[in-house]
Amino acid sequence: MDPNANGLAKRLAEAGQSHLLQFWKELGPEEQSDLTLDLQGMDFQELNGFFKKAMEASGSSKQEKMDARLEPVPREVLGSVTRDRESLKDWEEAGLRCISQSKVAVLLLAGGQGTRLGVSYPKGMYDVGLPSHKTLFQIQAERIFKLQQLAEQKHKIKCCLPWYIMTSGITMQSTKDYFSRHSYFGLDKNNIIFFQQGMLPAMEHNGKIILENKGKLSMAPDGNGGLYRALRNQGIMDDMERRGVEFIHVYCVDNILVKVADPSFVGFCVKKGADCGAKVVEKTNPTEAVGVVCKVDGRYRVVEYSEITLATAEKRSADGRLMFNAGNVANHFFSFSFLRDVVQKYEPELQHHVAQKKIPYVGTEGQLIKPDKPNGIKMEKFVFDIFQFAKTFVVYEVLREDEFSPLKNADSQDAKDTPTTARHALMSLHHRWVLNAGGHFIDENGRHVPAIPRDGAAGRFTDDGNRNLKDGTDLPIKCEISPLVSYGGEGLEELVKGREFHANLMIDGNGVHELVKNGV
Amino acid sequence: MDPNANGLAKRLAEAGQSHLLQFWKELGPEEQSDLTLDLQGMDFQELNGFFKKAMEASGSSKQEKMDARLEPVPREVLGSVTRDRESLKDWEEAGLRCISQSKVAVLLLAGGQGTRLGVSYPKGMYDVGLPSHKTLFQIQAERIFKLQQLAEQKHKIKCCLPWYIMTSGITMQSTKDYFSRHSYFGLDKNNIIFFQQGMLPAMEHNGKIILENKGKLSMAPDGNGGLYRALRNQGIMDDMERRGVEFIHVYCVDNILVKVADPSFVGFCVKKGADCGAKVVEKTNPTEAVGVVCKVDGRYRVVEYSEITLATAEKRSADGRLMFNAGNVANHFFSFSFLRDVVQKYEPELQHHVAQKKIPYVGTEGQLIKPDKPNGIKMEKFVFDIFQFAKTFVVYEVLREDEFSPLKNADSQDAKDTPTTARHALMSLHHRWVLNAGGHFIDENGRHVPAIPRDGAAGRFTDDGNRNLKDGTDLPIKCEISPLVSYGGEGLEELVKGREFHANLMIDGNGVHELVKNGV
Repeated sequence: MDPNANGLAKRLAEAGQSHLLQFWKELGPEEQSDLTLDLQGMDFQELNGFFKKAMEASGSSKQEKMDARLEPVPREVLGSVTRDRESLKDWEEAGLRCISQSKVAVLLLAGGQGTRLGVSYPKGMYDVGLPSHKTLFQIQAERIFKLQQLAEQKHKIKCCLPWYIMTSGITMQSTKDYFSRHSYFGLDKNNIIFFQQGMLPAMEHNGKIILENKGKLSMAPDGNGGLYRALRNQGIMDDMERRGVEFIHVYCVDNILVKVADPSFVGFCVKKGADCGAKVVEKTNPTEAVGVVCKVDGRYRVVEYSEITLATAEKRSADGRLMFNAGNVANHFFSFSFLRDVVQKYEPELQHHVAQKKIPYVGTEGQLIKPDKPNGIKMEKFVFDIFQFAKTFVVYEVLREDEFSPLKNADSQDAKDTPTTARHALMSLHHRWVLNAGGHFIDENGRHVPAIPRDGAAGRFTDDGNRNLKDGTDLPIKCEISPLVSYGGEGLEELVKGREFHANLMIDGNGVHELVKNGV
Repeated sequence: MDPNANGLAKRLAEAGQSHLLQFWKELGPEEQSDLTLDLQGMDFQELNGFFKKAMEASGSSKQEKMDARLEPVPREVLGSVTRDRESLKDWEEAGLRCISQSKVAVLLLAGGQGTRLGVSYPKGMYDVGLPSHKTLFQIQAERIFKLQQLAEQKHKIKCCLPWYIMTSGITMQSTKDYFSRHSYFGLDKNNIIFFQQGMLPAMEHNGKIILENKGKLSMAPDGNGGLYRALRNQGIMDDMERRGVEFIHVYCVDNILVKVADPSFVGFCVKKGADCGAKVVEKTNPTEAVGVVCKVDGRYRVVEYSEITLATAEKRSADGRLMFNAGNVANHFFSFSFLRDVVQKYEPELQHHVAQKKIPYVGTEGQLIKPDKPNGIKMEKFVFDIFQFAKTFVVYEVLREDEFSPLKNADSQDAKDTPTTARHALMSLHHRWVLNAGGHFIDENGRHVPAIPRDGAAGRFTDDGNRNLKDGTDLPIKCEISPLVSYGGEGLEELVKGREFHANLMIDGNGVHELVKNGV
């Protein structure tokens, strides 16, 4: 195990990364073995190339110059649930038909850890505290199950909605174990395909790879745009082709409301002959931290919120809406052929984005140091950077309150996108489903509870104005409907129309029942 | 001091309120005296009339029947900062001209206590933790000061913007003392006129007044619509007439961004010949807890969020916006003549609204009881209920991020409208003022900070993803500009254009300077 003997030291020297062996003599045999394996698996030339290009791109003032050339999404490529209401039914039927023909697959980006959330396990395993205590994975699994069922019932044919789940090295095993422990939530395990994205080392600004400790490189997943390289080197495209998959819905694990394989979205894209589509929500506040889909020199792209100038963010169209209001929510449609072209041809053209990071590292004395200022970079590719290669790109605008409530932060003072906001968003949606299906909610005095209760959605107040801290984060109406009963609000009339419910309602496989206080 | 001797017992018996004397023998002389005074000041016949009418109105299912007759605000009575951009300058100039002619007065609704906020003093005295630690009262006072200054500079004539401040019995003395202690923030104390709204007793569902303790009625301010009765019995209309006030801007104390006597709003209303105008923000989420301005049978009114049906709340116009999207923000314009008509003629027609409340009361044994379910009602009039009397009603739509960030709740998990959201809203606005005036912000490495920083507005994260709890509620950019320097973002170019600032900036009477860490 001598790095000089096996050529490793030489390779490192050529790549300018010799410092990685500085603690070699202090490592035990196993550590030396692990480090050797890690280093042997690395293509330093390629890596240095990534680094150079990434640093060049991030340094330029391209953004300001590009600003002038930005154009909003034109009306003709846009489908909108609020502005194209007369088409929604057709789109939904077209999408469900494709699902029934087993042409549609779902691809879940689940490589991230729940670090910002404050947990060490995969985010999909998070329980936001619904009455059912279902995790994000379970909710999504049940939506897939229900959709297959709806397609089969309508088209009288057994169909299959394959679920590709991309994890990272960190999350792969725990994710697989979790699904296995829960019997794949009733889905056929042969139709759930796990695959793993790659990792890239963190690097200092001078290009030197950072050592996390004496025998370990500091590695991180290569961004959600690492998807395309992973699809290739894990043989996923072949699997899709074998199954006859023609359309792929790609989405992020952290959106509790995500309409997995949304038939409307799929149908819209298919009817438009799109090779690539982006689901968006309307951005109404100029400084909202969301990227916007737009057009530059005839090609579509996402301008990140940290890249957009204020002047551009504040621009308005004649109708008063923000000009760049197509808020990207990491929810995409790809045709199989387009995805295959990306994987086989375009992937190397994708630029790595550079994020300035505070990366824990080992100092020259061997001590572990946590820096308080950014000391290096992580390089990531972004999944939406392939929009530029699309020939027929479309945008599908949906309502936040129905489809977008991401889980990003731990519950804490004034945080947004937390377990609480996610839980509230789902229960609020299901509450509205019940009202729209003709059900009513009554309070302990038998009076109808207003659709928007007197305390708003922010929590219950006692009537001397003091927040009832015990219930402080609870909604007045707790309502949860299992995806196995309803995918998107359909099919509820026979269960709720004309009926009155108290403010704690669960509709699931056990029927319609009122929750006892503090849970099911 | 014998209630039988002085006719009090008889009056109470006739009014069905004899129970109020049940603890008479247990009261000391002073308590008996206070109770007698309170009861003598009450018109039981009038009160019983209020109660009867209020209970009738609240019981009816008028809302469902009215739903079908609701119409949105027509385009011709709407002024919009996003859709009428070409008119904004004219409106602003017209408004400033009226201010310069001393025709405009400001009227502040400040009767509420900060109970929901968790403080026992008037809300206007709250310090949301800005770098300057200015309270809401001070910020508003300085905006008035600056506006007078702008009007005088432009029109070369000394002018006066009188400030009428309505308090309740609870808040009057502390408010007056506060202003006096701070020398009226540089304003002329003769142009600040305090007056007091009335109180009404809380009542049980059977019409019996509730005793808070053995010798005290449970009283509460009579709603912000108690304004009109107060204007009358405190001689405020005469004061306005003496001063030549023609236009009144009425607003709520709790909005940190409020543009006091907004020249654009005033100018728009004046140019339209409006007798009554409502400032609104666009409601984009159907279940937002905000009332909406709309039209019923040709008259304008506000439908409260707790009254609106879901079906109506979710209705959309052809352009995809919510049909009923004029979100009422308690910010109004009245012509003097209209206000006088209301005060002199229409006020008795205003309906009391009934709120179901948990009202602490004294039990039959004399013990103090805090109920856990609503046990009575409070009656309140609402300031916007006079819209129905307007001959020429207009609506002025502005941007939330520029003009509306109310302070309602204490900082706590997932609360909205808190000191933190208010503080962030103001600093974010001032940050944008600086950028729009040509200034830039740079980080410790000299790099430009993006307009929408990488951590969004929700707080700073360390780069391993963990929320830096020490700074968890701070914005990356702290920027505050005194109203004495700029009322609405004007006049900043000479101070900031082409300059670079670190992420802590204060612009006030001391000039442009960077804040030291943790404050000024």
